[in-house]
Amino acid sequence: MTTSVQALPGFKETVRKIKSYEEALGVLYWDLRTGAPRGGVDARSEAIGVLSAEMFRLTTSEELGEQLKELERPESLAQLSEIDRRLVEERRKEYDRYVKIPPKLYQEYVVLTSQAESKWEESKENDDFAGFEPYLDKIIAYQQQFVDLLGAKETRYDTLLDLYEPGMTTSELDRVFGELRGELVPLAAAIAESANKPDRSFLKQKFPIEAQRRLGDYILKEMGFSFEKGRIDESVHPFATGLNPGDVRITTHYYEDDVTNALFSSLHEGGHALYEQNIMSELTGTTLCQGTSMGIHESQSRFWENMIGRSKPFWTRYYRELQSFFPGQLNVPADDFYRAINVVEPSLIRIDADELTYNLHIIIRYEIEKMIFNEGVKASELPAIWNDKYKQYLGIVPPNNAKGVLQDVHWSGGMFGYFPSYSLGNMYAAQFADMMERELPDMWRLVEEGSLLPIKEWLTGKIYKYGKSKTPSELIEGVTGKPLDPQYLVRYLKGKYTEIYKL
Amino acid sequence: MTTSVQALPGFKETVRKIKSYEEALGVLYWDLRTGAPRGGVDARSEAIGVLSAEMFRLTTSEELGEQLKELERPESLAQLSEIDRRLVEERRKEYDRYVKIPPKLYQEYVVLTSQAESKWEESKENDDFAGFEPYLDKIIAYQQQFVDLLGAKETRYDTLLDLYEPGMTTSELDRVFGELRGELVPLAAAIAESANKPDRSFLKQKFPIEAQRRLGDYILKEMGFSFEKGRIDESVHPFATGLNPGDVRITTHYYEDDVTNALFSSLHEGGHALYEQNIMSELTGTTLCQGTSMGIHESQSRFWENMIGRSKPFWTRYYRELQSFFPGQLNVPADDFYRAINVVEPSLIRIDADELTYNLHIIIRYEIEKMIFNEGVKASELPAIWNDKYKQYLGIVPPNNAKGVLQDVHWSGGMFGYFPSYSLGNMYAAQFADMMERELPDMWRLVEEGSLLPIKEWLTGKIYKYGKSKTPSELIEGVTGKPLDPQYLVRYLKGKYTEIYKL
Repeated sequence: MTTSVQALPGFKETVRKIKSYEEALGVLYWDLRTGAPRGGVDARSEAIGVLSAEMFRLTTSEELGEQLKELERPESLAQLSEIDRRLVEERRKEYDRYVKIPPKLYQEYVVLTSQAESKWEESKENDDFAGFEPYLDKIIAYQQQFVDLLGAKETRYDTLLDLYEPGMTTSELDRVFGELRGELVPLAAAIAESANKPDRSFLKQKFPIEAQRRLGDYILKEMGFSFEKGRIDESVHPFATGLNPGDVRITTHYYEDDVTNALFSSLHEGGHALYEQNIMSELTGTTLCQGTSMGIHESQSRFWENMIGRSKPFWTRYYRELQSFFPGQLNVPADDFYRAINVVEPSLIRIDADELTYNLHIIIRYEIEKMIFNEGVKASELPAIWNDKYKQYLGIVPPNNAKGVLQDVHWSGGMFGYFPSYSLGNMYAAQFADMMERELPDMWRLVEEGSLLPIKEWLTGKIYKYGKSKTPSELIEGVTGKPLDPQYLVRYLKGKYTEIYKL
Repeated sequence: MTTSVQALPGFKETVRKIKSYEEALGVLYWDLRTGAPRGGVDARSEAIGVLSAEMFRLTTSEELGEQLKELERPESLAQLSEIDRRLVEERRKEYDRYVKIPPKLYQEYVVLTSQAESKWEESKENDDFAGFEPYLDKIIAYQQQFVDLLGAKETRYDTLLDLYEPGMTTSELDRVFGELRGELVPLAAAIAESANKPDRSFLKQKFPIEAQRRLGDYILKEMGFSFEKGRIDESVHPFATGLNPGDVRITTHYYEDDVTNALFSSLHEGGHALYEQNIMSELTGTTLCQGTSMGIHESQSRFWENMIGRSKPFWTRYYRELQSFFPGQLNVPADDFYRAINVVEPSLIRIDADELTYNLHIIIRYEIEKMIFNEGVKASELPAIWNDKYKQYLGIVPPNNAKGVLQDVHWSGGMFGYFPSYSLGNMYAAQFADMMERELPDMWRLVEEGSLLPIKEWLTGKIYKYGKSKTPSELIEGVTGKPLDPQYLVRYLKGKYTEIYKL
């Protein structure tokens, strides 16, 4: 029988290997989204399946099970560092989850979603839901199997939620989203009635993509994104991936007729990237070397995108820079620009939605995902259900599936249970920002001056550096002294939009 | 005891896994050379080490050893397809080679060379041999250990040669290079004496890189390179990598003041790529799904680059196209351009050398590599030895190490024994081309018309489709009816340059 000291090196080595596979698979995934030749996708998906299977095997091996048992003995735990204790907990959770899934099933599933994501890119481009539907059917079937194998928590959908936001439940989300919906729908209605709608017409121009690229790079540098430890590329659906803290990659998508799209997308993905780039080096080579949950990750992307990037102080500083990238094109005052980028109105595309109605887009997806897993709704029913809910919550109906149910990449990657994290992120962001304002009283003056690094440093010290070594609730309660409370977001939105729309 | 039918599926599955790791590692390698953030290289090298270790383990596992033994029984072999028989042979060779190397040693080595290649890129850029020397020392030490473990063949260097050109020996190379050197040195001397030297001054201009990029893409398409099954990027040192036949990637390097560099580099790497893109689909998912040796691979790159790409018929067709990419810049007749791209003169940089003196660059490296492994010469001695041999064979001395011993990437990747394959490639190319002319009598008329696809198809049917399922000697003897003979190359060079230089 091994002592704790003896089990630790083998455990750390297994963890190091798992992390290596995560990193390699991260590169392969990034590559598929940013330019891998289409002809090679099938063979690549096979290779991804093989590597994922080995990572799965390492994650659920009898050897690891034995190491965990040894290290979890009270006398062993007492000898471990805090980080190693966390690592044991984290690996135990993953072990218990994945050991219930047959390896072959998992590998098939990985190959399927790899192919499905590439198929989705095509289907979305060609507005071809019928072509994509069989993939979606199969993916949902696998997810249903996983729920069966992992065991339904309160409801079947709870099992999937827990994968992205550990500990989150449909009960809590029903409550929190209920509260949010109760406040936001009237607020959106009041805004719709307002006579003081910002003018956006001056944004309807062609903005050269080369200049947009340079603008995005500039803003990322101002935020503190390091190009020695990261890069930005183009993809169909923007994303961020932390391969390791020295290699964090984001993507965006430029549109010639809309300068704000890639700009705020870069702020958003840049927020994710700052998190990953500033994880403490002690966590390198371990599975704690990543953001702690999708919700906390989204809190960082939304903080930078909306609370900083759509704030008046930010544009007080950076509007003149923006104008300089597009000489002669932006002739309105900074305040007009500020109001124009904060237009609140129902829209079809989630990633383009304003920070208020965005949450309604999320609530729609939350309800649909619950219907699939708790009520057995099928892929073929989704376009109609989607369009109904958009009509119900936002008052508009997509003219086609490309602008409707096909708009997000998530389901093609098998990511059901992820969407609520975006709204949770908005809520966390507002709650963290409230504490930041208290601890950095001159925060907004710093933003006005373009001194963003103190903000990055506060976030690093409170959130980033811990990676996955702290749970979401430890972070929110540790930083703000309170559990998750949607009222911070509500207060922030009410305050901001009452001013903009003169309600 | 398993029967052959029983051992085959498990064997094919192991092969499929090995191929998957090769492909994944290929993507990671390509990524490191084409833009991975420098900050992440160390962690990436660790991940590469972990994956390489698993590939190594699969390649040398007891399980595979048992499967091979089973499948090699005469009664089993008799039941296998030709391809499966080849696969068994190929895996047996790799098994016997790698099973002699301790896994840990191999993994350390992979991590080292991954770091060393990135270090080389820096060192070459900064002309810093001293910074690179410790890496080179270590790599040579590992290689010496590998030779000890694999067992020296005729000489220690023979062991390394065999890795790149199965069956090739220093005896044969001494003979073949001796014959070549004996013919080429006088020919180069006669050329140096000729009064009819082509004028190249018209090439000394700035050629916009964007247009060079479009030119390269155009030429690749004309050759039959498929952009559905491949892509071209930029890197410090051009290379080609076949991840799978549907994803074959090449890189080049553009120089604003030299339009021919990237042009011929693209033809060269494009030749490698055509080989990989046209391997028969029956070999997909197996380790036979690659070019059969570095020498045969180089025969394809050099054939397209030199025998086609520097031929008069090619430019009879494509010179006007070239002119159209650079309006007003190339005003000399096509024949002047043809002569200018076939200037023969001593130079410092191998990849830029003319097709004649190129072989002298290779002979220099061959002799130095023999000195390292058969005479124990050290890294610290290399700059002086390099410079002496350049003076001896080419009459010029590098002004610094960046243009001398640091110019190639090969040694930083541990690739000792590779260089001779380039010259072997030149020899194979001339021998294959001689047969092509006999079997496609209107070959040069087709080139003049820009109908290059029949040439690609001849090569596909004779060479490409077989991948590694035929050995180099099977190919050269199968296609030409004779073993390797340097006289084809000699006759080709004499004929061409006698005409150009009016000897």
